[in-house]
Amino acid sequence: MSSDQSKTIQAIELFCPGTIANISCGFDVLGCCLDSVGDRMWIRKTSEPGLRISKITGADLPLDPAMNVAGAAIEALLAALDAAPVFGFELEIEKNIKPGSGIGSSAASAAGAVFGVNKLLGEPFTATELVQFAAEGERLACGSPIADNVTPALLGGFTLVQSEEPLRVYRLPVISGLWATVIHPQIEIKTSESRAILPQKIALKDAIRQWANVGTLVHALHLNDHELFGLSLKDHIVEPHRSKLIPLFDEVRDAALDLGALGCGISGSGPSIFTFSKSMEIAEKVKSKFEEIYSETSIPFQVYTSRINEEGIKILNQES
Amino acid sequence: MSSDQSKTIQAIELFCPGTIANISCGFDVLGCCLDSVGDRMWIRKTSEPGLRISKITGADLPLDPAMNVAGAAIEALLAALDAAPVFGFELEIEKNIKPGSGIGSSAASAAGAVFGVNKLLGEPFTATELVQFAAEGERLACGSPIADNVTPALLGGFTLVQSEEPLRVYRLPVISGLWATVIHPQIEIKTSESRAILPQKIALKDAIRQWANVGTLVHALHLNDHELFGLSLKDHIVEPHRSKLIPLFDEVRDAALDLGALGCGISGSGPSIFTFSKSMEIAEKVKSKFEEIYSETSIPFQVYTSRINEEGIKILNQES
Repeated sequence: MSSDQSKTIQAIELFCPGTIANISCGFDVLGCCLDSVGDRMWIRKTSEPGLRISKITGADLPLDPAMNVAGAAIEALLAALDAAPVFGFELEIEKNIKPGSGIGSSAASAAGAVFGVNKLLGEPFTATELVQFAAEGERLACGSPIADNVTPALLGGFTLVQSEEPLRVYRLPVISGLWATVIHPQIEIKTSESRAILPQKIALKDAIRQWANVGTLVHALHLNDHELFGLSLKDHIVEPHRSKLIPLFDEVRDAALDLGALGCGISGSGPSIFTFSKSMEIAEKVKSKFEEIYSETSIPFQVYTSRINEEGIKILNQES
Repeated sequence: MSSDQSKTIQAIELFCPGTIANISCGFDVLGCCLDSVGDRMWIRKTSEPGLRISKITGADLPLDPAMNVAGAAIEALLAALDAAPVFGFELEIEKNIKPGSGIGSSAASAAGAVFGVNKLLGEPFTATELVQFAAEGERLACGSPIADNVTPALLGGFTLVQSEEPLRVYRLPVISGLWATVIHPQIEIKTSESRAILPQKIALKDAIRQWANVGTLVHALHLNDHELFGLSLKDHIVEPHRSKLIPLFDEVRDAALDLGALGCGISGSGPSIFTFSKSMEIAEKVKSKFEEIYSETSIPFQVYTSRINEEGIKILNQES
């Protein structure tokens, strides 16, 4: 725990960013943080101890803190304090990231909640320490304390989860000028289906290609090498299975690569599809092409372009 | 091909270093170059075209160039030239790296041969371009053009093989002050046995741990972070199987880690065992302990300590 410097903050308004997990070769370990898609969250101190979620707009989610990922994450944080605070917290969330979209909706809530409460407590924990509490929110949503979305939400940029138990997470360098284009086809893929489709065992030769690409991706980030980064964005393990659940995945990927995108893959467990481009211009062209392709279907969709968010969660307002 | 600047070299004497391939998590993709163990090689121009291997000491290896990895590698290089040279080459090798040791004996010959011939030809190829020819030497020895030993021999330092076809290899940064201790127990492990013991399929969850560690290792090299490097030196896939073929592997590994080594694993396909340490003092203590452990067996062995060789193959002498 670090020193207490901002106990005077009474209320805080946050931007809680969406995140891309997996990033092709980095299934379950790599992630990155988006800049232009995210929730808003307001947290204020209350005189009465305890946690109350007063309002959630944009999604039908439980207000009961014990049933809500933000509540579960805050509870995990509070349980790790030396002493319970004499005040309480009231939370309001505007969900802009749709649950089930594959761009870290529950992670944004869990990460934002612990980031904000930590600020109101005078920052007893570092951003890296907060990951474990946010991961407890993910446990409520996914059944296990997965960290590949909450880590980029809290640390910003690109991140690597080496292990969850013990929790070892690292911030990686960000390639300059990188833009993401994300399309969210609004179909429901059940988590159970998305998991069941994955093989329990994989060919050793495919695994070798995958870890060669993970090594190359980390190397490319350190070198700020766009071409090498693009060469590493391959997934020989998960994408061949999960892409079958996403309509027009192959068309979308091929179109993005034709337009000069560095790579394209499934965001999280889908159905969102991400691409990376080395300029806003290419990212916007990819966006238009995605809109064109999906407009010919009856599937509702949203498309975002975004810089990589190096900061993670952002403070929009605070009251002392 | 690069420009021709040193066609005046008539003869060259080389140090052809041993190498550690795999490096725990990086099976088939990572490697590093040693400094104090290696072969010597002499190559001189002859007026008669063609290649002649005049002498090999230290190991019983074929002098017929078509049957020798150095010969096969040189043939691959010559075949890639625009025009055959009007002169020939005579080769002599002093093998100090025992064949079958697991520290890149055939790779040292293949890499040294193409490095030297390239020099005598006026450097038509870059070091990275030479990797493909040296890998053809490995094809003769192993049946496929594996690059994980020839790459560190040619590029020096730590290296990553992203793919063999097309060949994509990268030089990674070296952690400062790093020392290796390598013990070679002189037992024969048949390549066929060493391969057959590996599973064709592996658990996805183990593969995820492995690529998380590869990402962490590359990150640690870029950060020059010894502790993080040590945390990444785990092998959940290959070591559990192959270590059974190496007498006292567990004792040796546990002793090394107790003495402060950063990590310990199987070099190549064994039987050599490597450790990394952050100082010469620890590397020497580990060496003494290995000698102590193996002295209680009837197995002959050799132990080396070495800095990481950042240069790769070294020119010991050259005649104009």
